[in-house]
Formats: sequence, structure tokens, C-alpha cells
Amino acid sequence: MSALRRSPEKIIVPRGFAFSAIAAGIKVSGRPDLALAEATAGATAAALFTKNRVVAAPLEVGRASLRSSRGRVRAVLVNSGNANCATGAAGRKACELICREAGYLLDARAKEIFPSSTGIIGVPLPAEKIIAKLPGLLAGRSSSRSGALAFARAIMTTDTRPKVASARFRAGPHAVTILGIAKGSGMIHPQLATMLVYLFTDISSGPDELQRVLRGACDPTLNSMSVDGDTSTNDTVLLLASGQNGASLSNRSTRTKFSQALSGVCQSLAEQIVTDGEGVRHVIRLFIEQARSRPEALRVARAIAHSALVKTAWAGADPNWGRILAAVGYSGVPVDPSRVNIFIGGQTVCRKGTFYPFDEKRAHRSLAQADCDIRVQLGRGSSAVRFLTTDLTAEYVRINADYST
Amino acid sequence: MSALRRSPEKIIVPRGFAFSAIAAGIKVSGRPDLALAEATAGATAAALFTKNRVVAAPLEVGRASLRSSRGRVRAVLVNSGNANCATGAAGRKACELICREAGYLLDARAKEIFPSSTGIIGVPLPAEKIIAKLPGLLAGRSSSRSGALAFARAIMTTDTRPKVASARFRAGPHAVTILGIAKGSGMIHPQLATMLVYLFTDISSGPDELQRVLRGACDPTLNSMSVDGDTSTNDTVLLLASGQNGASLSNRSTRTKFSQALSGVCQSLAEQIVTDGEGVRHVIRLFIEQARSRPEALRVARAIAHSALVKTAWAGADPNWGRILAAVGYSGVPVDPSRVNIFIGGQTVCRKGTFYPFDEKRAHRSLAQADCDIRVQLGRGSSAVRFLTTDLTAEYVRINADYST
Repeated sequence: MSALRRSPEKIIVPRGFAFSAIAAGIKVSGRPDLALAEATAGATAAALFTKNRVVAAPLEVGRASLRSSRGRVRAVLVNSGNANCATGAAGRKACELICREAGYLLDARAKEIFPSSTGIIGVPLPAEKIIAKLPGLLAGRSSSRSGALAFARAIMTTDTRPKVASARFRAGPHAVTILGIAKGSGMIHPQLATMLVYLFTDISSGPDELQRVLRGACDPTLNSMSVDGDTSTNDTVLLLASGQNGASLSNRSTRTKFSQALSGVCQSLAEQIVTDGEGVRHVIRLFIEQARSRPEALRVARAIAHSALVKTAWAGADPNWGRILAAVGYSGVPVDPSRVNIFIGGQTVCRKGTFYPFDEKRAHRSLAQADCDIRVQLGRGSSAVRFLTTDLTAEYVRINADYST
Repeated sequence: MSALRRSPEKIIVPRGFAFSAIAAGIKVSGRPDLALAEATAGATAAALFTKNRVVAAPLEVGRASLRSSRGRVRAVLVNSGNANCATGAAGRKACELICREAGYLLDARAKEIFPSSTGIIGVPLPAEKIIAKLPGLLAGRSSSRSGALAFARAIMTTDTRPKVASARFRAGPHAVTILGIAKGSGMIHPQLATMLVYLFTDISSGPDELQRVLRGACDPTLNSMSVDGDTSTNDTVLLLASGQNGASLSNRSTRTKFSQALSGVCQSLAEQIVTDGEGVRHVIRLFIEQARSRPEALRVARAIAHSALVKTAWAGADPNWGRILAAVGYSGVPVDPSRVNIFIGGQTVCRKGTFYPFDEKRAHRSLAQADCDIRVQLGRGSSAVRFLTTDLTAEYVRINADYST
């Protein structure tokens, strides 16, 4: 997609949004940890949330707010460093208090403030620290690229770099812009969405239409990747449409173009999240083909992407296809092993479920690259998925074994 | 169980069995890799196999042999260093050839020879090397303790020590002995059985009765543990009853005693396998309580035992209960998080789904031990499981990232 811009310097901010970030003292490091994205004249919203039964307070509050405001959002308020999860009624109260205060300061209703939190689970959220910084946060609002980048940096936790992507296309006389900002590098195995992804556009749309387009764009992108197989309690994807550019989603050809551009932005964010996964050295693009259905292909992809043995083999650039075949075998899909073919970096390594003479050095070299394609054909049908995943390195263990509670 | 002996020097060999081991040149190291356990006058057999759809050749051959011999086995022949899996029709042929040759040398039918293989997947099995060593293997047969230990050592792959356990009890005038020998330290997440477990007893039994007792003993022991969440293609549990001691399983009180003793042997082998898991520093005994059913409790146990984030926290002795709660939340069981309690080493760390003030240093010390109990109450019913699992260490990654294909 030629219009897709991944480099932070080149992102485009759609009309109708302003951003700001500040340090509120939640992160021990003292780095910015409170971020605001304002739809200056309000926006229509669509959202996807984690399927984890354990859900953080801001997701409960945000979901209820979207329902009661009928999908209208004036601002997104994100803190990093604390997930406000497993914090009970006190956690919900803290979140509501913050939204009320931000609404008051923005002259908006509390339910038009969409809250997000990311960080450690089970620690009370210091609402007073956040509330004390709200005036300073609002004072810093800017519609510039650097404002959006400040937002992208303030929502980071173990991320090593901000994740942004934008796209622009023409719809008749109008230029439509989409900007995506995301964070996430561990606990990445979305059941519906990835950790925190905010998408901003200046098109106009009703909430139901926006929701359909969002789901269509996320399923093959943000919802088809995995770093460690752990589904977060705070996963959120939020799409805000300011309606400031004159184009409308109700136009069919515009909708098609918009869906393509949105998928492109989501795919770029998914790649950025996986590439920045904790301790990741190799990104693997899994292509599961010849499945009977898309859910079946996804199930096989997740079994492979979740296998500690497969992922550690990838860490060593080891073309150990037997471990991949074993994961296919226990995925729960009733495959006939004698119909399975496996390809690593374009080379056949397993044919009809048995070994196939291949150039091991070449396969090792393919896997030693920063990214590598692995294709698995199931011989059951014509459905396919593309799934992004990573290796599992000793560095991942070190990052997550730190005594951090 | 006072009669349970775990120390290799103290194992008891039941009547009617002889063992042998030899180096056949399958392992590159030159260590013994071919092992024989003979039921000198034949035995009744019961067996459990992997639920993986990808199944190694010896399992296909062994399953068919047991069916056609109606559960009669004369000898078990095991090679290590090569799994004879994903080797297609040639793999099955190689396995059958070996069984035929061993049957001929033992003056038994080929279908009374039960084959097993363990090692790398997808490499042709060198049948000729094995067949050449069969006469030497048979010449070394012995009913002594050291013969059984030689068998236990020859079936090892990445295991660092042999795994043996035995039990003896009185049934009226008769002494009944059970000897268990196992191997396994990676790809351990049995769906029905663990890698290779051989159980020998001198009681007499019909095959159906023996199968029932075996399943009852394995479900809460060998089938309730996980090292890395990967289910092997070669998992096999085989129980052989020689009927040489005069006692019979058809006696009800004997059957009860036998089941208890067999469970004790299986539990000891499960603990030995988990403790010797690749790179394992901490063994965790998970107790999932207040589930609505046993399968439900198992599902939660497996989600926790399979979480890379939870397992790496354990590697660092980090009492990060939020990751445990998150795994419960995505397990697929419809838990109400506000009813979940979590205990680490006897201390409450999460009550009703939220943080509970606890002594973090004490929890860290509990987790820093070689083993630690973690209890999760779901508040849904009265079913419970005990599940053995391990941490995930950088050492595990190193062992499995070796370029070994």
C-alpha cells in the first residue's frame, strides 16, 4: 500500500483531533505516563475489547460510557504504568472520578471521556496523581505530528519504540486521513484485539457502520498475531471518526477505500507490535492454507504460535519442522497428517506428513533473517489465514522473570 | 505411601520380567539406546497413547499388535535417539521388520513384541543398526535391579537421570510388586499419558480390567502435569501383568490395594518427570478448587501451566498473581473474577478477584523453594484437581534453541 506511512516523521494527523502527554508520577521512571487524545468537536466511536473474563476497570467503565453516549466520544484518556485491573469497586470508582474531572475540564459529559490503562495488574490506581495533572495535560494540547508522537510515547510500557501508522486516500473532492497509534509488546495473543490501539479518522460515520468496518479490518490484522499466547485483561481497539473532512462512510466506494486503508494501518501496527515483542529476534509470518474454514486455520496458527518448543527452535533458527507438525497434530483440528505439507522460507521441508530432502543450511539461513515465511498446508479445504508471530528467546524469559510485583 | 520406593537402589523387580540394554549407534553420543523388557512367560497388557493426531510409527504398530494379540505382550523393545515419527510407510515397515526379527529370536509372534521410539521427529529409523544388535541385547537379559536400571537409562533422551519407582503390598498370602520406569523431560503436556512409561507387575489380570485400573491411576497423576504444554507424538503408557505371584485383580480388596499402589508409582514417576523437566528450577503444585467439574478444573490448570508469562514469573520467584488471574480469565471457563481467590505457599494473595495485602517477601521466599503450592479457588462448585507443572527458564530456551535438525 503506497499510501501507508510507517515512519514516525511522516505520519499525518487527521482533522479534528488534538493530542497531549505529561508525566503524572505513575511510572517509577518518571517518564510521561498520562496521555490525551481529544476529538475537538466530538467523534463517533467504535471499539473492540478483550475476550478475557478478567477485565480491567477502564474497560468496564468505557464500555458502559460508549453504550450510554450511543458511541460519542470527546476524548481518550490513557495512563500507563498501572492497568487498574483486579482492583475491584475502588478501581472502577477511581476511573469514574478521573473521567468526571476530565469531562468537567473539557466542558463535556463524563461518559464522553473514554478511559484506558496499561501496566501492572492488581495495584490500586493513584487517581489523585492523575487528577492533579489534568490541567497541565489539557494546556499542552496540539494538533501537530509531535503532539501525536508524544501521545504514542506516553502510552508505552515495555515497548522500546512508539508504534504509529497513517494512510490517506481521496474520496471524490475530499482527502480522508487515518492515523493509528498502538502500544504492546508482551501479553500479546489477542482474542479480538491487541493491547491498546487508537485509530483516528476525519471521515463521518454512524456508530454501527463504523463498528462493522473496524471489525473487518482487525480480524485479519491485529487479531491474527501472537507474541506469547497470553491474552491481556486490557486489550482495546478504539476507532474515532471526527467527520471533519466532508466524506462519509455511507458512500459505498468510499467505504471500500476506507476499509482497505484501515486494514493497511492495522496491519502496519500489528507488524510493529510483533517486531517490538519482548525479547523478539525473529518475526515469523505463518501462512496456514487448505483449511476447511478460517476459524480452523486460525486454530492451527495459534497452536503453532503458542508452542514453546516451536518458538524456541525459531530462536535458534532451527528448521525443526517435526515440532511444527506435532503442534498441528495437537491443535484440535482433525487433520490427516499424511496430507500436511510444510514450507520454510519457500523450501518444502515436509511433504505428505513425512520428511522431504531439503537444503538444511538454506532453511537455517532463511530462519536466521529478521523475518521468515512459514507455510503449512492442511489438505482439507481452501481457507487460509496469515498470522504474525515471533520466536521465544532467553531474553523474553529475563524480561518477564524480573521480580516486579 | 510408605511402601513407595523412589530411590533407584531400592527398586523391586516383580516376578516374570527380565531387562537388557545396549548401544546400537542411534544416539550420536554412543550411549545405550536400545532397551528390552521381556515378560519371560508373557503378560497381559493395557496401554494408553497420545491424543496427538500426528502419531509415530511404533504407536500405530503397537496399537494394532495389542488388538490382534488381544492384549498379550512378550517383550517391549524401545529405541531412543529417533522417534520414528513423520517417517511414513517406510517408518512403519522399519518398525514391523524389527518386531518380526525380535519375535523370531524370542520364539514369539511379531505381534507380541511391543515397539517404542523416542527422539528426533522426521528422521528415518536405521532398522539395520537395531536388528544387528538384537542378539547381543537378548544375551544380556537379567531379572536383577541393575538390569531394570540399565533399561531405564537406555530410554533416556534429554533426561538427566533415570526415573523409576516401585511399590509392594500384601494380598492375602501373596506379595504383589509394581515397578514403574519412565522417561521424559520436554514435550510434556500429556493429553492422556506422558512420553514413555512402562509399568510391570506380577499380579494376574484380564486385559479389560487392567485397562480400567491403568486409566484410573493415570488420570490424576501422569495425565495431570505439564512442562512446556507440547503434547508429544509418541506418548505411551504400558502396563504389563505377568501373573506370576498367585494374586488376581479380580479380587475386589486386592484391586483396591493395587489401584492405590499403582497410583502411587505413577505419581512418583510424574514428579520425577516434572522435576527433571528441561531447564526446570521450580516445580509448582497447582491446586484448582471450587470448579464445577473435573474437566473444568483441568482446563484452568492447563491455561495457567501453559502461560509463558506465568511460568517466567515463577522462574524469577515473582508472586505476580495478576498473570495467574489473567490466565484463569482466558482459560475458556466462564469464571466470575469477583469470586476467585489465589493463594501462594499458603498465603492469600488475591481475594474475590482483587489484590489482598500480603507479605511479598514471604511469597517470594515460598516461590524460591524447589517446589511451591499455588491454590486457585474458582467459586463455582466443588470439583478440584491437583496439577504438577514447572517454571520456564532461560535454560529451557537454550536447550531447545540448539540448531539440532
